[in-house]
Amino acid sequence: MSLNIAKNNKKRAVIVGGGFGGLKLANKLKKSGFQVVLIDKNNYHQFPPLIYQVASAGMEPTSISFPFRKIFQHRKDFYFRMAEVRVIFPEKNMIQTSIGKAEYDYLVLAAGTTTNFFGNKHIEEEAMPMKNVSEAMGLRNALLANLERALTCSTKQEQQELLNIVIVGGGATGIEVAGILSEMKRFVLPNDYPDMPSSLMHIYLIEAGPRLLAGMSEDSSLHAEKFLREMGVNILLNKRVIDYRDHKVILEDGTEIATRTFIWVSGVTGVTIGNMNPSLIGRGGRIKVDQFNRVEGMDNVFAIGDQCIQSTDESYPNGHPQLAQVAIQQGELLAKNLIRLEKGQEMKPFHYRNLGSMATVGRNRAVAEFSKVKMQGWLAWVMWLVVHLRSILGVRNKVVVLLNWIWNYFTYDQSMRMIVYARKAKEIRDREKVEATTHLGQDLLSEDQ
Amino acid sequence: MSLNIAKNNKKRAVIVGGGFGGLKLANKLKKSGFQVVLIDKNNYHQFPPLIYQVASAGMEPTSISFPFRKIFQHRKDFYFRMAEVRVIFPEKNMIQTSIGKAEYDYLVLAAGTTTNFFGNKHIEEEAMPMKNVSEAMGLRNALLANLERALTCSTKQEQQELLNIVIVGGGATGIEVAGILSEMKRFVLPNDYPDMPSSLMHIYLIEAGPRLLAGMSEDSSLHAEKFLREMGVNILLNKRVIDYRDHKVILEDGTEIATRTFIWVSGVTGVTIGNMNPSLIGRGGRIKVDQFNRVEGMDNVFAIGDQCIQSTDESYPNGHPQLAQVAIQQGELLAKNLIRLEKGQEMKPFHYRNLGSMATVGRNRAVAEFSKVKMQGWLAWVMWLVVHLRSILGVRNKVVVLLNWIWNYFTYDQSMRMIVYARKAKEIRDREKVEATTHLGQDLLSEDQ
Repeated sequence: MSLNIAKNNKKRAVIVGGGFGGLKLANKLKKSGFQVVLIDKNNYHQFPPLIYQVASAGMEPTSISFPFRKIFQHRKDFYFRMAEVRVIFPEKNMIQTSIGKAEYDYLVLAAGTTTNFFGNKHIEEEAMPMKNVSEAMGLRNALLANLERALTCSTKQEQQELLNIVIVGGGATGIEVAGILSEMKRFVLPNDYPDMPSSLMHIYLIEAGPRLLAGMSEDSSLHAEKFLREMGVNILLNKRVIDYRDHKVILEDGTEIATRTFIWVSGVTGVTIGNMNPSLIGRGGRIKVDQFNRVEGMDNVFAIGDQCIQSTDESYPNGHPQLAQVAIQQGELLAKNLIRLEKGQEMKPFHYRNLGSMATVGRNRAVAEFSKVKMQGWLAWVMWLVVHLRSILGVRNKVVVLLNWIWNYFTYDQSMRMIVYARKAKEIRDREKVEATTHLGQDLLSEDQ
Repeated sequence: MSLNIAKNNKKRAVIVGGGFGGLKLANKLKKSGFQVVLIDKNNYHQFPPLIYQVASAGMEPTSISFPFRKIFQHRKDFYFRMAEVRVIFPEKNMIQTSIGKAEYDYLVLAAGTTTNFFGNKHIEEEAMPMKNVSEAMGLRNALLANLERALTCSTKQEQQELLNIVIVGGGATGIEVAGILSEMKRFVLPNDYPDMPSSLMHIYLIEAGPRLLAGMSEDSSLHAEKFLREMGVNILLNKRVIDYRDHKVILEDGTEIATRTFIWVSGVTGVTIGNMNPSLIGRGGRIKVDQFNRVEGMDNVFAIGDQCIQSTDESYPNGHPQLAQVAIQQGELLAKNLIRLEKGQEMKPFHYRNLGSMATVGRNRAVAEFSKVKMQGWLAWVMWLVVHLRSILGVRNKVVVLLNWIWNYFTYDQSMRMIVYARKAKEIRDREKVEATTHLGQDLLSEDQ
């Protein structure tokens, strides 16, 4: 098995990951003279800022994602392959993926991050992460099933576990999901479950650090905290979660909080590639790169976006924040730099233009900060809506998301409250078993290309 | 564990299944003086006529379904419980469900049908049914994954298996899915997979009987067949599928068709309740009922819709066709009859008013027949759209479905081509294991109610 892409006389740029960075890079390499190969484990680009709305039953996965093949329809010299990259062989300019191997002239790693459980296998098994639409759909289904179960379970203890929601991690995702679930508690629960007082539901937001939204200003942190407290969220700061046992979240200070809805959005770590030398990996599991996003010690291997850490930008000696804008700007510059390289020109170093950051807590409530301006409340919320609507790919998705928002705003309703799991066909289960047993680099031993 | 519904001084009507029949019945019992309990294994009503559009990536599950709790918001004396009914104890007026037991004064079985594999366990394991949104999402994911795989698999043989699609069953669902997949082959495949000739894909529609759409007139059958042949579908009539082995569908005459997309829409059988006496079950696994939809030999147990068979209607001595309209009309009449019973009045017998039937083959192509009129082509197609749009529950869904249709019509695109499986949380997996081991009637042995 191979990726089955004919080599032509063009240089081949293989991009691993079609998030904000990889997608921008692939777009900017249009008509550049490169053969572009995009590899992603999903067949679609997803829009992480709205994943929490999928989890809360306000948005469909298909409204915030876009199939790669559709994005790149009619694009010449472009190939998409759905696969996971397992191993890189820099000396052979070759990668091994779950569906075979492929050669490259330039390799760009843009696979982003995965949820960080800080080595706690037990929490990893029990907690619900929310890093992609698949996990968000799983969380939606679990939330709704827990509410149904709470009506009919045998004991008050179990009912309390089913109704309590614990969110670990006070970053943007944590406050966004806490906010939207508190709205669900207030506006949906009393109507859907009239025989179950919504006051029984308690929402906890636990943060190990001293404040929410550590990546933003103290002012924004305080506003977000104030908004959430007004909305009835129990905020615990400076509290570290160390375990989850018998349907209880255990804090370092011994406190226990009963819950069966244990949401983990406490941090991320760079996606790892099987054989990468540990010396190349920096803080947060991120691949160390130079000012041109080149992986240290390699000529033609690059990393961009959340997956890399670059400490050459004067204003960001500890690396850039892991934000969409960094990935987009790095993808944009790298496209130019690859073209320059081919022309025998010098590459240009990366400098991040900070376009600001924002987070939304609920209807009419958000915090936003730009280079000189800070905003809170309604205006920040409108800004948030506009910025995110503009960023979503595709006219159809923009329309659908906007209509959803308008509908949800006026009805106070998260209307997609169906518990649906796609039935996995035997053909697919069989194939996954085979792929899972494809060992690292195994294929390279065989003769076939 | 119990269903946890307080008994009051009202008579309790328990309805099992919230499809067309059960939902109509529950609606018509509003303000009737009954306490209504609706039990369904899903927390939403679904709209079967559009499930094939979910499978073909043209529609979201949430656009063609509606949460029961939302339908019945603010309804007095109404209870929804998500559960499966396992056993009926008529002498105790009690049912045992997956979440405990409940008493009833009247019990109405409206659980519909399930896919009929005619006892072939092997086909049951390998084939993809398409009876609900979960299966439709599974089929969508498998279809898309097979196309991705076809690009990179090792052999021409495997590629052909991945590209061939075999649909078994020439009823309305079979022709609808054959039609929409042939449109996908024509309009989507060449754009999404420019390096894979769409002529490699072959779509087979296999029917054991002598014609398609056996439930409609010969005229409609011939038109449907003609439309599908024009669209490039290979139609095999009078061919019986007996097995699926080594990625091949095996016909009775020895013919083998290679495929890894083996869709089974060949028939249905009534949903079975654990301890029901076989003498009560008629043709097609349907529960035998009298002219009032009362289960034979029981006073206060009824069955309506696809799950029952009624041979007392003069024009339908072999039972009614399994259509939405029959279920709706039976639900409507049964509501009146239950109210009559409570008033000490005689019940009225059921007579089906045939409002016609229709099936769509593709854009601008459908067949429809009403008592005196038969239509084909564009006019029938428009009728089909209007009738189905009117029948979908909820303003939001109507708007979303209409916009989707308009979008798909003008773009020739089934745009939801993302492969997404909801990640199943450990809490839910654990609970399912426990429920699966709840034996039939086990709870009744214990003392707790």
